[in-house]
Amino acid sequence: MISKDKKFLIVGLGLIGGSYAEGLKKAGYTVGAITRSQSSIDYAIEHGIIDAGTISVTQEFVSEYDIVVFSLYPHVFIEWIEKYQEYIKPGALLTDVTGVKGAVVNRVQSMLRPDLEFIGAHPMAGRETSGVQNATARVFEGANYIVTPTFKNTPEAIETCEEIGRILGFKTISSLTTAEHDEMIGFLSQLTHCIAVSLMNCKDDAEKLSRFTGDSFRDLTRIARINEEMWTELFLLNRNELLRQMDLFSAQFTRLRDAIANGDEATMKQMMVTSTERRGYFDKKA
Amino acid sequence: MISKDKKFLIVGLGLIGGSYAEGLKKAGYTVGAITRSQSSIDYAIEHGIIDAGTISVTQEFVSEYDIVVFSLYPHVFIEWIEKYQEYIKPGALLTDVTGVKGAVVNRVQSMLRPDLEFIGAHPMAGRETSGVQNATARVFEGANYIVTPTFKNTPEAIETCEEIGRILGFKTISSLTTAEHDEMIGFLSQLTHCIAVSLMNCKDDAEKLSRFTGDSFRDLTRIARINEEMWTELFLLNRNELLRQMDLFSAQFTRLRDAIANGDEATMKQMMVTSTERRGYFDKKA
Repeated sequence: MISKDKKFLIVGLGLIGGSYAEGLKKAGYTVGAITRSQSSIDYAIEHGIIDAGTISVTQEFVSEYDIVVFSLYPHVFIEWIEKYQEYIKPGALLTDVTGVKGAVVNRVQSMLRPDLEFIGAHPMAGRETSGVQNATARVFEGANYIVTPTFKNTPEAIETCEEIGRILGFKTISSLTTAEHDEMIGFLSQLTHCIAVSLMNCKDDAEKLSRFTGDSFRDLTRIARINEEMWTELFLLNRNELLRQMDLFSAQFTRLRDAIANGDEATMKQMMVTSTERRGYFDKKA
Repeated sequence: MISKDKKFLIVGLGLIGGSYAEGLKKAGYTVGAITRSQSSIDYAIEHGIIDAGTISVTQEFVSEYDIVVFSLYPHVFIEWIEKYQEYIKPGALLTDVTGVKGAVVNRVQSMLRPDLEFIGAHPMAGRETSGVQNATARVFEGANYIVTPTFKNTPEAIETCEEIGRILGFKTISSLTTAEHDEMIGFLSQLTHCIAVSLMNCKDDAEKLSRFTGDSFRDLTRIARINEEMWTELFLLNRNELLRQMDLFSAQFTRLRDAIANGDEATMKQMMVTSTERRGYFDKKA
């Protein structure tokens, strides 16, 4: 258990940062926040999501906190560490919510003060909305939380980081290497976003098509509504792994296309039987 | 309005055929059914979904009905017409629920007795379940119903066919040529199923992956659970159109892949902005 006198600082108070704040506050912790917009701070204080907040990064404020959670764009996160890590309380634990791990975790761990510890985490949750106004720890219900420790991490930090996931109400807490994480996320999340974006780019008569669409197309393109700044950054930070996953998919798609072109019913059916069998594992358990 | 003394015959009492039967019965029509399994007939009679049913196709039974709805695999539908159309009441109207139109409608219209009329329809609704036991007209709520008349159809038949869609509670009733229908369905439905099947065929450690998956992957593969007999038949009946749609998608996917490989942020962002804008049209209206 993380002692209740530990104070959390959220850096970046958007949908995910705000949801961390809300969940930690509800669990009885003191939560502070630093973010770019004063209105987000005002909203969060009014709604009891944080105890204190500021838009200016000062040693006086930052050094109050024992555990710092970064919910920022990757390059902003790294710049923040470069610029402000001197303000952080000695012995503090740092963690994050970034969607790619290899490029970020190694970079941050190698530049960090020796008396601080950073351990990467990825809460696999999100919504099509954004901003602290939409924040709620309910977004974590039924979702997965992945910790990506390296040889630089202590057992205590790993335990604390996993405990944060439990406090926030994630369904599953797992541990992966950064490479395992990036392969998995390249396939399950980045590739699927690439597919949805490509599909939505195929036809320019979207309005007309929408009158005929069923749930299949809707489901496949829900994630085509995408923040182009964040995802471009995440794709490029995981470029090699993502390209590998895209090529894996293309190979299977081409295999199916060739089977259809050749009237090869055996291959078509075999691929459908395989997909039907495997899909069973992905049903949401109640 | 279709007069209440018109009697409907459903041929093929599965999920969709059964849902037609249920909706038509509720609206006050007499509904009969022919299907392969006696247990489906028994179930449907017990639950008040049909008035009468049989597993043997006889002139005595078939000739009772004014409107015949075929809910069969395409090749079974065509065989049925070849074999049993002589039993159908003179002047009867025939319609169907088949997911491809060009190959089916032209074939059936060209072989039909001159005193019968066939008009194609496609109720764009479905579930991952099957069988009359899961039938309910609620499956049509909020869904699209498409009529595909040809020059062989009379205005009266088109009106009656559209009226069936209204009786069943579809949200939108539209009319398309068979070619327009097959292009649209090739893109919105068949291509999306090809994508889901291909995605699910990429990795053989489905069980492990499922522990980390979020909603994106779940949404994109919901339709990877697929009836391989029916979809193989539907894909091959719409082969040329489907291949065109698959190639359209591949071109966009390759464009995005190249942009990622080259670090071409402008193209990546432009594709994401386009997909985000267009996706707005596909939100379900309340």
